[in-house]
Amino acid sequence: MNGAVVLFSGGQDSTTCLYWAKTTFEQVVALNVQYGQRHQREIESARKITLLAGVELVEAEFGAFRPMAHSAMLQGVGSVQDVNKDGLPATFLPGRNLVLLALAGSLAYARGFSNLVTGVCQTDYSGYPDCRSEFINSARETICLALDRSFMVHAPLMWLTKAETVKLARALSGCWEGLALSHTCYEGGHPACGECPACKLRIKGFLEAGEKDPAVEA
Amino acid sequence: MNGAVVLFSGGQDSTTCLYWAKTTFEQVVALNVQYGQRHQREIESARKITLLAGVELVEAEFGAFRPMAHSAMLQGVGSVQDVNKDGLPATFLPGRNLVLLALAGSLAYARGFSNLVTGVCQTDYSGYPDCRSEFINSARETICLALDRSFMVHAPLMWLTKAETVKLARALSGCWEGLALSHTCYEGGHPACGECPACKLRIKGFLEAGEKDPAVEA
Repeated sequence: MNGAVVLFSGGQDSTTCLYWAKTTFEQVVALNVQYGQRHQREIESARKITLLAGVELVEAEFGAFRPMAHSAMLQGVGSVQDVNKDGLPATFLPGRNLVLLALAGSLAYARGFSNLVTGVCQTDYSGYPDCRSEFINSARETICLALDRSFMVHAPLMWLTKAETVKLARALSGCWEGLALSHTCYEGGHPACGECPACKLRIKGFLEAGEKDPAVEA
Repeated sequence: MNGAVVLFSGGQDSTTCLYWAKTTFEQVVALNVQYGQRHQREIESARKITLLAGVELVEAEFGAFRPMAHSAMLQGVGSVQDVNKDGLPATFLPGRNLVLLALAGSLAYARGFSNLVTGVCQTDYSGYPDCRSEFINSARETICLALDRSFMVHAPLMWLTKAETVKLARALSGCWEGLALSHTCYEGGHPACGECPACKLRIKGFLEAGEKDPAVEA
Protein backbone atom coordinates (compact mmCIF):
# COMPACT_ATOMS: atom_id res chain seq x y z
CA MET A 1 0.00 0.00 0.00
CA ASN A 2 1.14 3.52 -0.78
CA GLY A 3 1.54 4.51 2.85
CA ALA A 4 4.51 5.88 4.74
CA VAL A 5 5.85 6.06 8.28
CA VAL A 6 7.68 9.36 8.91
CA LEU A 7 10.24 9.47 11.71
CA PHE A 8 9.09 12.63 13.38
CA SER A 9 10.91 14.51 16.14
CA GLY A 10 8.99 17.75 15.80
CA GLY A 11 12.09 19.56 14.53
CA GLN A 12 12.64 21.53 11.32
CA ASP A 13 13.84 18.68 9.13
CA SER A 14 11.28 16.08 10.12
CA THR A 15 8.48 18.66 9.88
CA THR A 16 9.53 19.36 6.30
CA CYS A 17 9.63 15.60 5.65
CA LEU A 18 6.14 15.19 7.12
CA TYR A 19 4.65 17.68 4.68
CA TRP A 20 6.74 16.24 1.85
CA ALA A 21 5.30 12.81 2.67
CA LYS A 22 1.77 14.23 2.69
CA THR A 23 2.24 15.34 -0.91
CA THR A 24 3.70 11.96 -1.92
CA PHE A 25 1.80 9.15 -0.18
CA GLU A 26 -1.85 8.27 0.26
CA GLN A 27 -1.49 7.53 3.94
CA VAL A 28 1.02 8.99 6.39
CA VAL A 29 1.68 8.10 10.02
CA ALA A 30 4.23 10.00 12.13
CA LEU A 31 6.38 8.06 14.61
CA ASN A 32 7.92 9.89 17.54
CA VAL A 33 10.39 7.91 19.62
CA GLN A 34 11.26 9.21 23.07
CA TYR A 35 14.65 7.78 23.93
CA GLY A 36 15.50 10.02 26.88
CA GLN A 37 16.07 13.35 25.13
CA ARG A 38 17.18 16.29 27.22
CA HIS A 39 13.81 18.02 27.15
CA GLN A 40 10.08 17.57 26.50
CA ARG A 41 9.57 20.46 24.10
CA GLU A 42 10.19 18.31 21.02
CA ILE A 43 7.29 16.00 21.82
CA GLU A 44 5.00 18.98 22.45
CA SER A 45 5.94 20.34 19.02
CA ALA A 46 5.38 16.91 17.48
CA ARG A 47 1.85 16.76 18.93
CA LYS A 48 0.93 20.28 17.79
CA ILE A 49 2.28 19.85 14.27
CA THR A 50 0.63 16.48 13.60
CA LEU A 51 -2.66 17.88 14.90
CA LEU A 52 -2.30 20.83 12.52
CA ALA A 53 -1.32 18.56 9.63
CA GLY A 54 -4.08 16.03 10.31
CA VAL A 55 -1.61 13.16 10.61
CA GLU A 56 -1.77 10.33 13.14
CA LEU A 57 1.07 10.41 15.67
CA VAL A 58 2.38 7.20 17.23
CA GLU A 59 4.49 7.80 20.34
CA ALA A 60 6.94 5.11 21.42
CA GLU A 61 9.01 5.13 24.59
CA PHE A 62 12.45 3.69 24.49
CA GLY A 63 14.69 3.79 27.55
CA ALA A 64 17.16 1.15 26.41
CA PHE A 65 20.00 3.52 25.49
CA ARG A 66 20.40 4.84 29.01
CA PRO A 67 22.46 2.01 30.54
CA MET A 68 24.86 1.81 27.60
CA ALA A 69 25.43 5.08 25.82
CA HIS A 70 27.03 8.28 27.01
CA SER A 71 25.66 11.04 24.85
CA ALA A 72 24.76 14.66 25.39
CA MET A 73 21.46 13.83 23.66
CA LEU A 74 20.35 12.09 26.85
CA GLN A 75 19.10 14.20 29.71
CA GLY A 76 21.77 15.43 32.04
CA VAL A 77 24.71 13.81 30.28
CA GLY A 78 27.47 16.24 29.26
CA SER A 79 27.23 19.39 27.15
CA VAL A 80 25.79 19.62 23.66
CA GLN A 81 28.81 21.74 22.64
CA ASP A 82 31.40 19.04 23.43
CA VAL A 83 33.28 16.78 21.10
CA ASN A 84 33.73 13.17 22.25
CA LYS A 85 36.94 11.14 22.27
CA ASP A 86 36.34 9.96 18.68
CA GLY A 87 36.11 13.53 17.43
CA LEU A 88 32.34 13.21 16.94
CA PRO A 89 29.84 15.68 18.37
CA ALA A 90 28.90 14.80 21.96
CA THR A 91 25.31 14.65 20.76
CA PHE A 92 26.05 11.48 18.74
CA LEU A 93 23.99 8.65 20.25
CA PRO A 94 25.55 5.44 18.92
CA GLY A 95 22.99 3.29 17.14
CA ARG A 96 20.14 5.79 17.44
CA ASN A 97 19.22 6.14 13.78
CA LEU A 98 19.37 2.39 13.20
CA VAL A 99 17.00 1.76 16.10
CA LEU A 100 14.67 4.53 14.86
CA LEU A 101 14.58 3.08 11.34
CA ALA A 102 14.02 -0.44 12.69
CA LEU A 103 11.06 0.82 14.73
CA ALA A 104 9.69 2.68 11.70
CA GLY A 105 9.99 -0.58 9.75
CA SER A 106 8.15 -2.43 12.50
CA LEU A 107 5.30 0.10 12.42
CA ALA A 108 5.17 0.09 8.62
CA TYR A 109 5.01 -3.72 8.70
CA ALA A 110 2.08 -3.61 11.10
CA ARG A 111 0.22 -1.09 8.91
CA GLY A 112 1.04 -2.69 5.58
CA PHE A 113 3.00 0.37 4.43
CA SER A 114 6.02 0.16 2.12
CA ASN A 115 7.71 3.50 2.75
CA LEU A 116 9.87 4.90 5.55
CA VAL A 117 10.78 8.58 5.59
CA THR A 118 13.68 10.10 7.53
CA GLY A 119 15.01 13.65 7.64
CA VAL A 120 18.69 12.71 7.81
CA CYS A 121 20.97 14.85 5.71
CA GLN A 122 24.54 14.26 4.67
CA THR A 123 25.22 17.83 3.52
CA ASP A 124 25.06 19.30 7.00
CA TYR A 125 25.59 16.04 8.80
CA SER A 126 28.00 17.31 11.45
CA GLY A 127 30.00 14.09 11.39
CA TYR A 128 27.25 11.69 12.51
CA PRO A 129 28.05 8.44 10.69
CA ASP A 130 24.40 7.35 10.77
CA CYS A 131 23.30 10.30 8.62
CA ARG A 132 25.30 9.18 5.58
CA SER A 133 23.65 7.77 2.48
CA GLU A 134 25.77 4.60 2.70
CA PHE A 135 24.23 3.93 6.09
CA ILE A 136 20.68 4.61 4.90
CA ASN A 137 21.07 2.29 1.91
CA SER A 138 22.51 -0.48 4.03
CA ALA A 139 19.82 -0.05 6.69
CA ARG A 140 17.15 -0.34 4.01
CA GLU A 141 18.52 -3.70 2.86
CA THR A 142 18.82 -4.94 6.42
CA ILE A 143 15.25 -3.94 7.30
CA CYS A 144 13.91 -5.68 4.19
CA LEU A 145 15.75 -8.85 5.20
CA ALA A 146 14.67 -8.59 8.84
CA LEU A 147 11.00 -8.30 7.90
CA ASP A 148 10.99 -10.24 4.61
CA ARG A 149 9.16 -7.35 2.93
CA SER A 150 10.16 -4.67 0.43
CA PHE A 151 10.55 -1.17 1.82
CA MET A 152 11.81 2.06 0.38
CA VAL A 153 13.65 4.41 2.73
CA HIS A 154 13.19 7.99 1.57
CA ALA A 155 15.58 10.66 2.76
CA PRO A 156 14.39 13.68 0.77
CA LEU A 157 16.78 16.09 2.51
CA MET A 158 19.88 13.91 2.05
CA TRP A 159 21.66 16.17 -0.42
CA LEU A 160 20.05 19.51 0.38
CA THR A 161 21.73 22.37 2.19
CA LYS A 162 19.76 23.83 5.09
CA ALA A 163 18.89 26.79 2.83
CA GLU A 164 17.49 24.40 0.21
CA THR A 165 15.47 22.66 2.94
CA VAL A 166 13.97 26.04 3.85
CA LYS A 167 13.04 26.61 0.19
CA LEU A 168 11.49 23.14 0.01
CA ALA A 169 9.40 23.93 3.11
CA ARG A 170 8.17 27.13 1.40
CA ALA A 171 7.03 25.09 -1.59
CA LEU A 172 5.11 22.46 0.43
CA SER A 173 1.51 23.33 1.17
CA GLY A 174 0.95 23.99 4.88
CA CYS A 175 4.56 23.32 5.84
CA TRP A 176 5.38 26.91 6.82
CA GLU A 177 2.63 26.89 9.45
CA GLY A 178 3.98 23.58 10.70
CA LEU A 179 7.52 24.99 10.92
CA ALA A 180 6.23 27.81 13.13
CA LEU A 181 5.47 25.12 15.73
CA SER A 182 8.68 23.14 15.25
CA HIS A 183 11.47 22.91 17.79
CA THR A 184 15.15 22.48 16.96
CA CYS A 185 17.19 23.81 19.92
CA TYR A 186 19.13 21.16 21.88
CA GLU A 187 18.55 23.14 25.09
CA GLY A 188 14.76 22.97 24.97
CA GLY A 189 14.07 26.60 25.81
CA HIS A 190 11.66 29.03 24.16
CA PRO A 191 12.76 31.14 22.46
CA ALA A 192 15.55 28.90 21.16
CA CYS A 193 19.01 29.53 22.64
CA GLY A 194 20.54 30.48 19.28
CA GLU A 195 23.92 29.17 20.42
CA CYS A 196 23.80 25.37 20.29
CA PRO A 197 24.94 23.54 17.12
CA ALA A 198 21.33 22.77 16.10
CA CYS A 199 20.23 26.40 16.48
CA LYS A 200 23.24 27.65 14.52
CA LEU A 201 22.46 25.34 11.59
CA ARG A 202 18.81 26.42 11.57
CA ILE A 203 19.65 30.15 11.72
CA LYS A 204 22.22 29.78 8.93
CA GLY A 205 19.70 27.98 6.71
CA PHE A 206 16.99 30.64 6.99
CA LEU A 207 19.57 33.41 6.55
CA GLU A 208 20.97 31.87 3.37
CA ALA A 209 17.47 31.23 2.03
CA GLY A 210 16.57 34.88 2.66
CA GLU A 211 13.60 33.91 4.85
CA LYS A 212 12.51 34.71 8.39
CA ASP A 213 12.10 31.65 10.59
CA PRO A 214 8.37 31.37 11.34
CA ALA A 215 9.14 29.79 14.72
CA VAL A 216 10.99 32.97 15.75
CA GLU A 217 8.15 35.19 14.57
CA ALA A 218 5.64 33.01 16.46
CA MET B 1 39.81 -4.74 22.17
CA ASN B 2 39.04 -8.45 22.24
CA GLY B 3 35.75 -8.02 24.07
CA ALA B 4 32.25 -9.14 23.20
CA VAL B 5 28.66 -8.22 23.95
CA VAL B 6 26.43 -11.31 24.08
CA LEU B 7 22.71 -10.85 23.49
CA PHE B 8 21.43 -12.83 26.42
CA SER B 9 17.84 -13.83 27.06
CA GLY B 10 18.55 -16.51 29.63
CA GLY B 11 17.38 -19.25 27.27
CA GLN B 12 19.16 -22.35 26.02
CA ASP B 13 20.76 -20.85 22.93
CA SER B 14 22.01 -17.61 24.42
CA THR B 15 23.31 -19.49 27.48
CA THR B 16 25.34 -21.71 25.17
CA CYS B 17 26.57 -18.59 23.36
CA LEU B 18 27.56 -16.94 26.65
CA TYR B 19 29.83 -19.84 27.58
CA TRP B 20 31.11 -20.02 24.00
CA ALA B 21 32.01 -16.33 24.22
CA LYS B 22 33.78 -16.90 27.55
CA THR B 23 36.10 -19.38 25.83
CA THR B 24 36.74 -17.02 22.91
CA PHE B 25 37.05 -13.43 24.16
CA GLU B 26 39.04 -11.74 26.91
CA GLN B 27 36.08 -9.73 28.15
CA VAL B 28 32.39 -10.60 27.94
CA VAL B 29 29.33 -8.54 28.86
CA ALA B 30 25.80 -9.97 28.62
CA LEU B 31 22.99 -7.71 27.40
CA ASN B 32 19.40 -8.55 28.34
CA VAL B 33 16.74 -6.46 26.64
CA GLN B 34 13.24 -6.48 28.15
CA TYR B 35 10.87 -5.53 25.37
CA GLY B 36 7.60 -6.62 27.00
CA GLN B 37 8.00 -10.39 26.98
CA ARG B 38 5.12 -12.47 28.27
CA HIS B 39 6.78 -13.36 31.55
CA GLN B 40 9.56 -12.47 33.97
CA ARG B 41 11.15 -15.89 34.28
CA GLU B 42 13.65 -15.25 31.48
CA ILE B 43 15.18 -12.28 33.24
CA GLU B 44 15.43 -14.27 36.49
CA SER B 45 17.29 -17.00 34.59
CA ALA B 46 19.53 -14.38 32.97
CA ARG B 47 20.50 -12.99 36.38
CA LYS B 48 21.22 -16.40 37.90
CA ILE B 49 23.27 -17.64 34.95
CA THR B 50 25.46 -14.52 34.63
CA LEU B 51 26.09 -14.64 38.39
CA LEU B 52 27.15 -18.29 38.07
CA ALA B 53 29.27 -17.53 35.01
CA GLY B 54 30.90 -14.44 36.56
CA VAL B 55 29.79 -12.22 33.67
CA GLU B 56 28.47 -8.66 33.94
CA LEU B 57 24.80 -8.35 32.99
CA VAL B 58 23.45 -5.11 31.48
CA GLU B 59 19.66 -4.89 31.59
CA ALA B 60 17.91 -2.55 29.17
CA GLU B 61 14.20 -1.78 29.12
CA PHE B 62 12.51 -1.19 25.84
CA GLY B 63 8.78 -0.57 25.58
CA ALA B 64 8.77 0.87 22.08
CA PHE B 65 7.36 -2.19 20.31
CA ARG B 66 4.09 -2.12 22.22
CA PRO B 67 2.25 0.61 20.27
CA MET B 68 3.17 -0.81 16.88
CA ALA B 69 3.59 -4.56 16.80
CA HIS B 70 1.08 -7.30 17.38
CA SER B 71 3.01 -10.34 18.43
CA ALA B 72 2.38 -13.22 20.79
CA MET B 73 5.85 -12.47 22.23
CA LEU B 74 4.36 -9.45 23.97
CA GLN B 75 2.43 -10.02 27.16
CA GLY B 76 -1.19 -10.79 26.68
CA VAL B 77 -1.25 -10.56 22.90
CA GLY B 78 -2.55 -13.70 21.15
CA SER B 79 -1.40 -17.30 21.54
CA VAL B 80 2.15 -18.55 21.03
CA GLN B 81 0.75 -21.46 18.99
CA ASP B 82 -0.85 -19.27 16.31
CA VAL B 83 0.33 -18.48 12.81
CA ASN B 84 -0.11 -14.88 11.66
CA LYS B 85 -1.60 -13.71 8.37
CA ASP B 86 1.81 -13.88 6.64
CA GLY B 87 2.19 -17.54 7.59
CA LEU B 88 4.86 -16.67 10.16
CA PRO B 89 4.70 -17.86 13.77
CA ALA B 90 2.61 -15.51 15.92
CA THR B 91 5.70 -15.10 18.09
CA PHE B 92 7.48 -13.15 15.31
CA LEU B 93 8.09 -9.62 16.58
CA PRO B 94 8.87 -7.55 13.48
CA GLY B 95 12.19 -5.76 13.81
CA ARG B 96 13.14 -7.32 17.13
CA ASN B 97 16.48 -8.87 16.20
CA LEU B 98 17.61 -5.72 14.37
CA VAL B 99 16.86 -3.57 17.40
CA LEU B 100 18.62 -6.08 19.67
CA LEU B 101 21.74 -6.09 17.48
CA ALA B 102 21.71 -2.29 17.22
CA LEU B 103 21.60 -2.07 21.01
CA ALA B 104 24.41 -4.62 21.32
CA GLY B 105 26.42 -2.48 18.89
CA SER B 106 25.72 0.60 20.96
CA LEU B 107 26.94 -1.13 24.13
CA ALA B 108 30.01 -2.55 22.37
CA TYR B 109 30.81 0.95 21.06
CA ALA B 110 30.62 2.35 24.59
CA ARG B 111 32.91 -0.40 25.94
CA GLY B 112 35.36 -0.38 23.03
CA PHE B 113 34.51 -3.99 22.13
CA SER B 114 34.58 -5.28 18.55
CA ASN B 115 32.41 -8.39 18.82
CA LEU B 116 28.67 -9.01 19.03
CA VAL B 117 27.36 -12.50 19.74
CA THR B 118 23.83 -13.72 18.99
CA GLY B 119 22.24 -17.14 19.37
CA VAL B 120 20.13 -16.96 16.20
CA CYS B 121 20.01 -20.17 14.20
CA GLN B 122 18.84 -20.74 10.66
CA THR B 123 18.62 -24.53 10.95
CA ASP B 124 15.69 -24.48 13.36
CA TYR B 125 14.63 -20.96 12.55
CA SER B 126 10.90 -21.58 12.44
CA GLY B 127 10.41 -19.09 9.62
CA TYR B 128 11.64 -15.96 11.40
CA PRO B 129 13.25 -13.87 8.65
CA ASP B 130 15.55 -12.13 11.13
CA CYS B 131 17.27 -15.39 12.07
CA ARG B 132 18.69 -15.96 8.58
CA SER B 133 22.39 -15.56 7.82
CA GLU B 134 21.63 -13.03 5.07
CA PHE B 135 20.00 -10.82 7.65
CA ILE B 136 22.88 -11.17 10.13
CA ASN B 137 25.47 -10.31 7.46
CA SER B 138 23.50 -7.29 6.31
CA ALA B 139 22.92 -6.12 9.89
CA ARG B 140 26.66 -6.35 10.55
CA GLU B 141 27.43 -4.03 7.64
CA THR B 142 24.71 -1.60 8.66
CA ILE B 143 25.92 -1.45 12.27
CA CYS B 144 29.50 -0.82 11.13
CA LEU B 145 28.25 2.07 8.97
CA ALA B 146 25.99 3.44 11.71
CA LEU B 147 28.84 3.56 14.22
CA ASP B 148 31.79 4.05 11.87
CA ARG B 149 33.60 1.17 13.58
CA SER B 150 34.44 -2.40 12.61
CA PHE B 151 32.43 -5.10 14.33
CA MET B 152 32.14 -8.84 13.87
CA VAL B 153 28.75 -10.40 14.49
CA HIS B 154 29.22 -13.98 15.66
CA ALA B 155 26.34 -16.42 15.38
CA PRO B 156 27.99 -19.66 16.48
CA LEU B 157 24.74 -21.65 16.39
CA MET B 158 23.71 -20.48 12.90
CA TRP B 159 24.12 -23.83 11.15
CA LEU B 160 23.79 -26.21 14.09
CA THR B 161 20.79 -28.43 14.77
CA LYS B 162 19.39 -28.25 18.28
CA ALA B 163 21.08 -31.61 18.98
CA GLU B 164 24.43 -30.17 17.89
CA THR B 165 23.84 -27.16 20.14
CA VAL B 166 23.32 -29.55 23.06
CA LYS B 167 26.61 -31.27 22.22
CA LEU B 168 28.37 -27.91 22.01
CA ALA B 169 27.01 -27.02 25.46
CA ARG B 170 28.43 -30.32 26.82
CA ALA B 171 31.86 -29.38 25.47
CA LEU B 172 31.94 -25.86 26.95
CA SER B 173 33.29 -25.64 30.48
CA GLY B 174 30.58 -24.69 32.98
CA CYS B 175 27.85 -24.46 30.37
CA TRP B 176 25.87 -27.48 31.56
CA GLU B 177 25.43 -25.91 35.01
CA GLY B 178 24.31 -22.71 33.29
CA LEU B 179 21.78 -24.61 31.17
CA ALA B 180 20.25 -26.05 34.35
CA LEU B 181 19.19 -22.48 35.19
CA SER B 182 18.08 -21.52 31.68
CA HIS B 183 14.50 -20.90 30.64
CA THR B 184 13.05 -21.57 27.18
CA CYS B 185 9.27 -22.03 27.55
CA TYR B 186 7.13 -19.29 25.99
CA GLU B 187 4.58 -19.73 28.78
CA GLY B 188 6.93 -18.85 31.62
CA GLY B 189 5.94 -21.67 33.98
CA HIS B 190 8.16 -24.01 35.96
CA PRO B 191 8.41 -26.78 35.06
CA ALA B 192 8.24 -25.82 31.38
CA CYS B 193 4.93 -26.53 29.64
CA GLY B 194 6.46 -28.98 27.15
CA GLU B 195 3.85 -28.04 24.57
CA CYS B 196 4.79 -24.64 23.13
CA PRO B 197 6.97 -24.42 19.98
CA ALA B 198 10.05 -23.40 22.02
CA CYS B 199 9.66 -26.31 24.47
CA LYS B 200 9.18 -28.78 21.63
CA LEU B 201 12.40 -27.66 19.93
CA ARG B 202 14.32 -27.92 23.18
CA ILE B 203 12.98 -31.38 24.03
CA LYS B 204 13.73 -32.66 20.52
CA GLY B 205 17.32 -31.36 20.71
CA PHE B 206 18.15 -33.10 23.99
CA LEU B 207 16.43 -36.29 22.81
CA GLU B 208 18.40 -36.41 19.55
CA ALA B 209 21.64 -35.64 21.40
CA GLY B 210 20.94 -38.52 23.81
CA GLU B 211 21.17 -36.21 26.84
CA LYS B 212 18.86 -35.35 29.72
CA ASP B 213 17.99 -31.66 29.96
CA PRO B 214 19.67 -30.40 33.16
CA ALA B 215 16.88 -27.82 33.60
CA VAL B 216 14.37 -30.66 33.86
CA GLU B 217 16.50 -32.52 36.39
CA ALA B 218 16.95 -29.33 38.43
